[in-house]
Amino acid sequence: MTELPTFEDVAEAAARINPHIHKTRIVGSGMLNRYLGAEMMFLCENQQRGGSFKTRGALNSVIARFDRGEISSEHGILTYSAGNHAQALALAASQMRIPLTVLMPTDAAHVKVEMTKSYGVTVEYYDPQTDDREEIAQAMAAERNLSIIPPFNDREIIAGQGTAVRELLMEVGRVDAIVLPVGGGGLIGGSSLVSKVFSPEAQIWGVEPEGGDDARQSLEKGEIVTIDNPDTVCDGVRTRRIGDLTFGLMQKNVTGITTVPDSDVFTCMKLVADRLKLIAEPTGVLGMAGAMKLIADGTLPRGSRIGVILSGGNVDMDTFASCITQADDAVEQMQRYGR
Amino acid sequence: MTELPTFEDVAEAAARINPHIHKTRIVGSGMLNRYLGAEMMFLCENQQRGGSFKTRGALNSVIARFDRGEISSEHGILTYSAGNHAQALALAASQMRIPLTVLMPTDAAHVKVEMTKSYGVTVEYYDPQTDDREEIAQAMAAERNLSIIPPFNDREIIAGQGTAVRELLMEVGRVDAIVLPVGGGGLIGGSSLVSKVFSPEAQIWGVEPEGGDDARQSLEKGEIVTIDNPDTVCDGVRTRRIGDLTFGLMQKNVTGITTVPDSDVFTCMKLVADRLKLIAEPTGVLGMAGAMKLIADGTLPRGSRIGVILSGGNVDMDTFASCITQADDAVEQMQRYGR
Repeated sequence: MTELPTFEDVAEAAARINPHIHKTRIVGSGMLNRYLGAEMMFLCENQQRGGSFKTRGALNSVIARFDRGEISSEHGILTYSAGNHAQALALAASQMRIPLTVLMPTDAAHVKVEMTKSYGVTVEYYDPQTDDREEIAQAMAAERNLSIIPPFNDREIIAGQGTAVRELLMEVGRVDAIVLPVGGGGLIGGSSLVSKVFSPEAQIWGVEPEGGDDARQSLEKGEIVTIDNPDTVCDGVRTRRIGDLTFGLMQKNVTGITTVPDSDVFTCMKLVADRLKLIAEPTGVLGMAGAMKLIADGTLPRGSRIGVILSGGNVDMDTFASCITQADDAVEQMQRYGR
Repeated sequence: MTELPTFEDVAEAAARINPHIHKTRIVGSGMLNRYLGAEMMFLCENQQRGGSFKTRGALNSVIARFDRGEISSEHGILTYSAGNHAQALALAASQMRIPLTVLMPTDAAHVKVEMTKSYGVTVEYYDPQTDDREEIAQAMAAERNLSIIPPFNDREIIAGQGTAVRELLMEVGRVDAIVLPVGGGGLIGGSSLVSKVFSPEAQIWGVEPEGGDDARQSLEKGEIVTIDNPDTVCDGVRTRRIGDLTFGLMQKNVTGITTVPDSDVFTCMKLVADRLKLIAEPTGVLGMAGAMKLIADGTLPRGSRIGVILSGGNVDMDTFASCITQADDAVEQMQRYGR
């Protein structure tokens, strides 16, 4: 295994990318807090450039490789991704004038494909049911002389993603817990490095959809577990397995992984829309849904201060409408979750 | 007619209410600007306390009357409103511990009624098809010894609403136009006082739904016109007539009133959700819809810098889902509106 990234990598990443990213807001809802008996602080990465926190890792990785001369306008990059990483790399590559090829699943959200193409990216497709995207990517990279920037299992990607929680904790100070979505584990891996330094007593929880709990299984078993066909509305975390770096960080730092049903995701999307007036994609509210579950079952005690990342906002409006229409009444839901 | 409010009234209002309101963000979309060939700057009053700019006027009016000893914990207030003013007054009254009675139309949005009640307000109903709400309010106020705070035709309400554009212009400097929704005219009236001082050359446009253009008719005719049964999805501007103060300010300061169909409102709600990741209520995007029309027809020239208020975010999620589902594809719409 490559050496694990460190807190210093995150600090360097912040210095590298801060001129290029939005300083997103931290918001909360008094009504939600009153119902839950806890304080939830949301960092609005749904309003980050490119529509998700993934812009952080992508910029860090592209700028660092460019500065080292590994990529250039002649020597392009390639990635595979469910969408937000692709869109984030597209933004980073376009800024540094580096050609980008993206391998996307045939079932990627329309808005993500269109947004990616709008940055002038070459899009190629693979079938997520039958193809191994990493194998296809490696063959394509070798053939076309491209550098692969993977979506999560990469030192600089992980460090870049960690800058979101760094901003959150620099602003709000120590917290009792941070609760984050887990797909490949880049966000929680990088975040855990920051949390251990800025808020050493804080619990660090990951959240997966019930239909795609490979990270939970991996931590339980003590080795990386691969799952077939993740089944969830959260397209941003339909990963089949985490990486060795992100697994290493999770084993070392993470308190635990909890899972939530898609119905909780719908509820939280509606609560975020209703109370915060924000559009979040399904994956974007996984942290919130997990935090509400951990509050409801008493894992996070009454009065906890909880840091949550609204991780992305890239959702087709038809999907968004369908999700909030399926959700139960938001106020009733808060009452159900409250104690 | 009572004397018209002045710029000084707005400056005083800002000093009075600033400790109690959110400093809302100003956002924009590079993609939208590229399509339109203009720069639109949105002040996010959908994320204001109480969910709309109306909190500004309500706080100004309640605090000023309280300071003058006109209202107290024994001598309560009463208002009539389509919703956001009621919710805003509820917030202001609860903060100053003053009892509030609100007369609401029987067809008010469920979320607005619930939010209003959640502040401990007494809600009474009138039938907007048959009753004159002002008559009913006056009778009720006399009988119960309450002070009426009207939704728009009031010096302190107008001055308070003007503080939103004051914040916008203090941040972004001079603009070529401000474009604002017109219901009773409190927002555009107060805003015009600020714009004339901070950005004297700026055009000041009001926007009404096609199904409720009483202000447009009033300015055209030179006297206040009353319309029957405004028919529009924009429940925040279903006013039947403007007031003498707001009419006076509009006659004096406003460049013109444009109208938009509800279908443009759906489009803009979807664009705001898609590009800015924000929930706006139908009335909340009227300014944006009007600005896009004025850009498309050449009234606002290429390269214009345009200030817009996203005036509110209080919308039932079912209504929201229905609006964005009815909207055409957002990118296609931008292309249609662009030049």
